Amino acid sequence: MEFVTGRTEKETKDLSQLLAEEQEGTEVKVNGAIHTIRDMGTVAFVVLRKREGLLQCVYQEGVSKFDVNELKEASTVEVTGKLVKNEKAPNGIEVQMETVTVLSEPVEPMPIPIAKWKMGVNLETNLDLRAISLRNVRERAKFRIQEGITRGFRDYLYGKGFTEIHTPKIGSKGAEGGANMFKMEYFHRPAVLAQSPQFYKQMMVGVFDRVFETAPVFRAEKHNTKRHLNEYTSLDFEMGYIDSFADIMEMETGVLQSIMALLQKDYAKELAILKVDLPKVDKIPQVRFDEAKKLVSEKYNRPIRNPYDLEPEEEHLIGQYFKEEYGADFVFVTHYPSKKRPFYAMDDPADETFTLSFDCLFRGLEITTGGQRIHDYNMLMEKLEKKGMTDEGMEYYLMAFKHGMPPHGGLGIGLERLTMQLLGEENVRETTLFPRDLSRLEP
Amino acid sequence: MEFVTGRTEKETKDLSQLLAEEQEGTEVKVNGAIHTIRDMGTVAFVVLRKREGLLQCVYQEGVSKFDVNELKEASTVEVTGKLVKNEKAPNGIEVQMETVTVLSEPVEPMPIPIAKWKMGVNLETNLDLRAISLRNVRERAKFRIQEGITRGFRDYLYGKGFTEIHTPKIGSKGAEGGANMFKMEYFHRPAVLAQSPQFYKQMMVGVFDRVFETAPVFRAEKHNTKRHLNEYTSLDFEMGYIDSFADIMEMETGVLQSIMALLQKDYAKELAILKVDLPKVDKIPQVRFDEAKKLVSEKYNRPIRNPYDLEPEEEHLIGQYFKEEYGADFVFVTHYPSKKRPFYAMDDPADETFTLSFDCLFRGLEITTGGQRIHDYNMLMEKLEKKGMTDEGMEYYLMAFKHGMPPHGGLGIGLERLTMQLLGEENVRETTLFPRDLSRLEP
Repeated sequence: MEFVTGRTEKETKDLSQLLAEEQEGTEVKVNGAIHTIRDMGTVAFVVLRKREGLLQCVYQEGVSKFDVNELKEASTVEVTGKLVKNEKAPNGIEVQMETVTVLSEPVEPMPIPIAKWKMGVNLETNLDLRAISLRNVRERAKFRIQEGITRGFRDYLYGKGFTEIHTPKIGSKGAEGGANMFKMEYFHRPAVLAQSPQFYKQMMVGVFDRVFETAPVFRAEKHNTKRHLNEYTSLDFEMGYIDSFADIMEMETGVLQSIMALLQKDYAKELAILKVDLPKVDKIPQVRFDEAKKLVSEKYNRPIRNPYDLEPEEEHLIGQYFKEEYGADFVFVTHYPSKKRPFYAMDDPADETFTLSFDCLFRGLEITTGGQRIHDYNMLMEKLEKKGMTDEGMEYYLMAFKHGMPPHGGLGIGLERLTMQLLGEENVRETTLFPRDLSRLEP
Repeated sequence: MEFVTGRTEKETKDLSQLLAEEQEGTEVKVNGAIHTIRDMGTVAFVVLRKREGLLQCVYQEGVSKFDVNELKEASTVEVTGKLVKNEKAPNGIEVQMETVTVLSEPVEPMPIPIAKWKMGVNLETNLDLRAISLRNVRERAKFRIQEGITRGFRDYLYGKGFTEIHTPKIGSKGAEGGANMFKMEYFHRPAVLAQSPQFYKQMMVGVFDRVFETAPVFRAEKHNTKRHLNEYTSLDFEMGYIDSFADIMEMETGVLQSIMALLQKDYAKELAILKVDLPKVDKIPQVRFDEAKKLVSEKYNRPIRNPYDLEPEEEHLIGQYFKEEYGADFVFVTHYPSKKRPFYAMDDPADETFTLSFDCLFRGLEITTGGQRIHDYNMLMEKLEKKGMTDEGMEYYLMAFKHGMPPHGGLGIGLERLTMQLLGEENVRETTLFPRDLSRLEP
């Protein structure tokens, strides 16, 4: 009987293994996609694209035992040769090629210059050709950093006693009313796609005290802006036994600190490729919603038009204000008006026109909405009535409250938005692997 | 200006902090939900349910400065008192209560005995009352273990150079044809929910070499069995530059070893609660599909009815065979017939009626389907034609192959099924937080 034992080491070397090799002239076997070929006649530079970066391989007539003209850009190959140092090569090493085995070949020339540092194609083309445009070294680096963000979020919360949950995306009714929900048919019954895991994560606070989820959410919003997507990844957490909604902001600050520390430690290469300076997150200023509006109105001489909401321009100016005054990239804006928050938001007992809630702005853009929730059943029923809503379709959610729930709150962070702001991109589609918007359903 | 600095330590103590406390009689503050109250007159035992387990608190007339009759089961409370050792208490400690602050109260009595070790309710009731039935200590332990599985999967793959991706769940066409897809309307255009991230993860092999995703998938299958769900969490990976499909089985074996090691290390308490013995995964036998059918047919005297597929009963017997003959809980069944595999599966060059693919059975149930994929564009187009399919709606997927793809393969593991088999449950709904099936769309 043959057995599989979990041997995952390969004969071919990763870039980091090559960089760790100290012996000059070691025979190595490597593989990769041919990123570029620069043919100089008797010498040719064949740069391989590997997952950890680029590796220069050198063809030399007489030494290399193959015809360089048989190699094509975008082929994938396995190369044997001698590993030598070369300060001029990417990462300071190169492989003097002896043999090449072609693993696969393209059938058409590349329509965009993916090997250029900046491809110079517009966003629509980039997105249409996602399968190949992401092969560009800068493009793919964005999504390595996105991985680091998700990972930093999870690792921190595991350490703080949170349980990871998986809640259903198909349901019978939404958390915040029926607007903006994608509708579908579920075995001849009407159903909707979840616009957030809100109800489920709250219910699970009664079970695990602290929970988180990193999963897609769906918003059928009809506006096409640079900061909206109709499907995105939401980093959600919800925690019980809070003393106040400040506990949630402290936890988010801890999460952000964890993310930045992880990026610095494990994603330095990608940060360097994209020239990203990590923001300072040792302390984040907090300001009341009404106070923030006033500060910005005064400093930038801008009338307050809508006292109940922040216009994008105002968010931007709040970001500018706290950058100028405190050198801060993040700011917590607290006590949003009840009018603009969902029914489950806890009103401020000191003034019920405001809620114990917050947004976190990062460089002038909202990346998080959070706050304390109502945990008392009777208060929740009163709030529903006050909002002119009924409990229809919410019975299973309300059940958790009927049977006792601790004081709790939580938040949701938009992963692609956070990535966009961190990388200084202008459009959230730049930091979404395969964006979905009003006009885009493919690739 | 007030700043948030990431202070997440609380004055109240977690169970693990209490257990680490060596000083007898230390004054502590704790919180939790009242799981049970056993009132003996001048003494009462108030057991708190905390996220890490149960904590016994003791009311004593004269010592405790409150009226125990004011406490209700399912209330959440904050307690102060002295921490003392007591071998008879859960976890060997208890708190001699001094004061209690009630944080919240239930409005209705609990309809099921959640504090019992086994609740004794049927599955339908359990699922209907999910918000409270999961408060049972055994029920919630299942999902802690599920967390450990997901975490072990991710941690191992991060370490092996995989990049985590987030692919869209709303799309225009499915990976394996249009059958079994949920249909929806996307801004007046027809759309479907992804039944797997197959196309996207393959495309991303051309970018990152190795990728994984842990996300929901949607299957509109009309059968209601104990092992099927219409929405589940799929643990997917895809890897390039493989030498053969054996590399994928080696990687899965590594993943399973990582999961079991993590469960043993960090989830021992939950394993003990559920009396789970972890399976041995140091080596997993592999057997050809046709050979497996023959072995089982001979040993158990069972005629082979369908040479192209495994019936559930056959899968079960294969599991039994390898348990009896080799003491193995897992088995890789390889070389499934081409007929039953999707178009992108790589046929075996030695015999094209079979594919370079496998299923992983765990205690007689398929938990993984995987294999090598076709990476050559022309071969892929021929296979499509042979299967009577067209490339309509697949242009973006095929683009990756036009421009060169390394040899690659991957797999998908059903998280809830793996959990079910590990815990010895009979129905996959037992290990799904909020299952979706033919008749269940709530909670």
